Amino acid sequence: MIGVIWGTLLLLFLLPHGIKGKLRSKDGEGPTVTIPDKPNIVLLVADDMGWGDLCSYGHPTQECGEIDKMAAEGMRFTQWYSADSLCSPSRAALLTGRLPVRVGVWGGERVFVNDGSGGLPKNETTIAEALKDAGYATGMVGKWHLGINEFLPGDGRHLPHHHGFDFVGTNLPFTNHWACDESKVHMAHPNPMKCFLYWNTTLVQQPFRHDNLTASFLQDSIAFIHNNKDRPFFLYFSFAHMHTDMFSAPRFRETSRRGRYGDGLRELDWAVGEVLKTLVSLQIQHRTLMIFLSDHGGHLEICTEGGSNGILKGGKASTWDGGLRVPAIAWWPGVVAPGQVSQHLVSSMDVFQTAAELAGATPPKDRIYDGKSLVPILLQKTSAVPTGKPTPSLRTLFHYCSDRLMAVRQGEYKAHFYSMELPTNYSEHCPGGVPKVEYFTSFDCYGPHITRHDPPLLFNIARDPGELYPLSVEEYDDIITEILAAKAQHQAHLMPGKAQCKETSTTLQPCCNPPFCYCNYKPDGNR
Amino acid sequence: MIGVIWGTLLLLFLLPHGIKGKLRSKDGEGPTVTIPDKPNIVLLVADDMGWGDLCSYGHPTQECGEIDKMAAEGMRFTQWYSADSLCSPSRAALLTGRLPVRVGVWGGERVFVNDGSGGLPKNETTIAEALKDAGYATGMVGKWHLGINEFLPGDGRHLPHHHGFDFVGTNLPFTNHWACDESKVHMAHPNPMKCFLYWNTTLVQQPFRHDNLTASFLQDSIAFIHNNKDRPFFLYFSFAHMHTDMFSAPRFRETSRRGRYGDGLRELDWAVGEVLKTLVSLQIQHRTLMIFLSDHGGHLEICTEGGSNGILKGGKASTWDGGLRVPAIAWWPGVVAPGQVSQHLVSSMDVFQTAAELAGATPPKDRIYDGKSLVPILLQKTSAVPTGKPTPSLRTLFHYCSDRLMAVRQGEYKAHFYSMELPTNYSEHCPGGVPKVEYFTSFDCYGPHITRHDPPLLFNIARDPGELYPLSVEEYDDIITEILAAKAQHQAHLMPGKAQCKETSTTLQPCCNPPFCYCNYKPDGNR
Repeated sequence: MIGVIWGTLLLLFLLPHGIKGKLRSKDGEGPTVTIPDKPNIVLLVADDMGWGDLCSYGHPTQECGEIDKMAAEGMRFTQWYSADSLCSPSRAALLTGRLPVRVGVWGGERVFVNDGSGGLPKNETTIAEALKDAGYATGMVGKWHLGINEFLPGDGRHLPHHHGFDFVGTNLPFTNHWACDESKVHMAHPNPMKCFLYWNTTLVQQPFRHDNLTASFLQDSIAFIHNNKDRPFFLYFSFAHMHTDMFSAPRFRETSRRGRYGDGLRELDWAVGEVLKTLVSLQIQHRTLMIFLSDHGGHLEICTEGGSNGILKGGKASTWDGGLRVPAIAWWPGVVAPGQVSQHLVSSMDVFQTAAELAGATPPKDRIYDGKSLVPILLQKTSAVPTGKPTPSLRTLFHYCSDRLMAVRQGEYKAHFYSMELPTNYSEHCPGGVPKVEYFTSFDCYGPHITRHDPPLLFNIARDPGELYPLSVEEYDDIITEILAAKAQHQAHLMPGKAQCKETSTTLQPCCNPPFCYCNYKPDGNR
Repeated sequence: MIGVIWGTLLLLFLLPHGIKGKLRSKDGEGPTVTIPDKPNIVLLVADDMGWGDLCSYGHPTQECGEIDKMAAEGMRFTQWYSADSLCSPSRAALLTGRLPVRVGVWGGERVFVNDGSGGLPKNETTIAEALKDAGYATGMVGKWHLGINEFLPGDGRHLPHHHGFDFVGTNLPFTNHWACDESKVHMAHPNPMKCFLYWNTTLVQQPFRHDNLTASFLQDSIAFIHNNKDRPFFLYFSFAHMHTDMFSAPRFRETSRRGRYGDGLRELDWAVGEVLKTLVSLQIQHRTLMIFLSDHGGHLEICTEGGSNGILKGGKASTWDGGLRVPAIAWWPGVVAPGQVSQHLVSSMDVFQTAAELAGATPPKDRIYDGKSLVPILLQKTSAVPTGKPTPSLRTLFHYCSDRLMAVRQGEYKAHFYSMELPTNYSEHCPGGVPKVEYFTSFDCYGPHITRHDPPLLFNIARDPGELYPLSVEEYDDIITEILAAKAQHQAHLMPGKAQCKETSTTLQPCCNPPFCYCNYKPDGNR
């Protein structure tokens, strides 16, 4: 009786806050879950965080924190793949649900540079654009890296405002911020030309200050949530952490056993916790899906300051799993059951379709999408102990380097047609764990460091997640045949978008105070 | 008011079941915890399970199960070290709280063999003996590996019955059970002479059957718990899993995405769950400390069937962290707070002192103990987000290979004075993930595969858990000096016990049906 009263009170309390949506449940998997109509979507993206960096993903000395708590209260994915192992293409795919090669975010150095003229093409529909059409408030803060100017310095034609984000707070249009390394651990001569901070479309700091960067992102995010708490919203909060150089606000320095990398992660973790607390304090957590993920794997060449990809092979820039597989957690109290670990093969490109389905948005039908909705997976209530042989997901993922198809993952198997040489001699390059040279990975997809495999190098990723033991192509002939068929079918329908990462022009360099191009930067000091 | 009534009822219910012990709390860390007097101790030990093998330790495809649930309800340790990286010495140290070199479990092949005359010396006091004196019922099942016969075949003078275990169920006195490989994946010619099963001191199967092995261990364990539920008990349940060869009962076969290794782990996991359920169903969980751990790291040379040591370097037999660090979980509802991850530097040798403290036992005072009680750590309630710089544990651990001191861990640092060559060329040795040769690690501590390091090879394990980036000995001169001082002090007080693993005699071979030495084994078939 008391239970009934409480239940009724809870229902009465929840109803005006938006729980009045569709009833859904996975077949035979426990009670029906009510999915509220047009839930908020909060997308938190870490930069360069490796698959093995978090306590919940098994790191032995990274302090457990808010992200791990989020995992304990939600669903942690172990086979979530980014669409690319570099920033610009992975983010283009995340926001559009399409492979970077289709979208055109490839070529050149595979990323947009500070004086580039390219950007995410306007005919692509981002999550923000799709959800805006469905009545959502849209906002972003933090790292963008999908283009800045197109024709003129300061035209800002590629900035987030032109891609569906109505609110754009503090943001970094470009981030290769080891060029901003005040500590001089990673770069002896910081280059402030590459270190500029915007507020919406306005350049506000050059070079930017590291100390309050995360706090500024967070402040703008919380303001956006508060301002939109009574209507559906989509927030894209994109961290500068864990990209090199390593930084954190003074109060996080020397707080981690792991050193500077851990300090930075703790600052990021604090900010994630503050977003969670904001949602709970506004009592909108039951109508908010929050996803935390990384854009791609950790940067091995940066040694102990490049993060950990766990047992996975390789890292950033490559198509080994260490480059592509990322930590990813979905949190949605009342909808996503707590404490779940999903081993489904999924992709960052799935976020677009997930958001579209939940928002009731209709994405343009004139293009191929590579992602698919995660909603059925999010509703699963895997029991702690599986009770039968799990069905391997027969999904297929295509792993590119620029426009070169490097590898295909299908179900449990992964075939490498090309692979990138792994960094070696860590001890030599990294005395004491710190890199001797500034940067030494190649982003090139056609150089001599790329090995062709014919027949392909085949691995069973479920049994051999470290890609250590190639399978016999004779014995697995049927699997290779299937993968080759899937590859042929995929390539038959692939129309690469025009490569956007190639063009640069010195006249497009963002510049705080032309013609001298300094702002808070003193040209004759500091450098 | 209702709360008070419920609390009183709960108290009344719990009191007769043993919660009437000491009040204890860690300074300033939340409410006081009542530790019941003479709680039961259940020690579950996996064989050769690697640090990275469990879902809760970050394995991407091992199914989550009961052990992970145990971790979620208890405390998971990330820096728990075994005292040795081979079976016999690690188990000798676990049961006595003392380094194997003191105890005398060293020399020869560093393990007791089927026809050896050595065993754990009688003057050593095991947990079972210490707790028996304090009024505990003591029982063991499963893998022993601390000696069999001493003078005569069948005298069984080294068996668990002679080391304080009053109840000894189904057990394997010796386990190199790839020699029992019925599947012939690991050994073309199984050798039944090495595959014998005992019930207490009686040889009951030769070769033993794999199918119902775990179920038999479990059945005896549950019977022991039932029979002793009203008095304090100590149970040592020592699994045959995950030692090669890989096996599981038919109902677990092909249930894991990871293959045979995962299948076996699921069987082990099931058994752990059954023990947990038994404790809960008897309502004795609040007065039972259950610890699950592995005896040492995974066996790299067995490829995908040798388990995963996560990001740690090396494995079984070596003194790299992959050989020594193990998964370890403590579970004690009402005493150990749920969902905790402890990064304290601890050792399997601590179990002895922990059990002794909880039981109120008085261990012999004429010897040096290397372990210390975990009780203060078990009572900690680490908040999800640490709020200050963690104090690195300044504990020192000494890592031996036989009587050779190989490495010293002190606080965050580890200095290698000697190290063992790592297995290389996995792809060559492990076509498709299965080893080509039966066995190729050396257990020798003085051969050419051992490299001397002078000055020592120094790592910061907190920042570089993979032991990848040696630190500069000039820069860390003070740390090395401290470690050398600790080493000198340790060695000044070290009296190695007489080496017990050397002697063998063909006349001591356990034999089911002498003089033909077969039992259920048919000499002219099966081989």
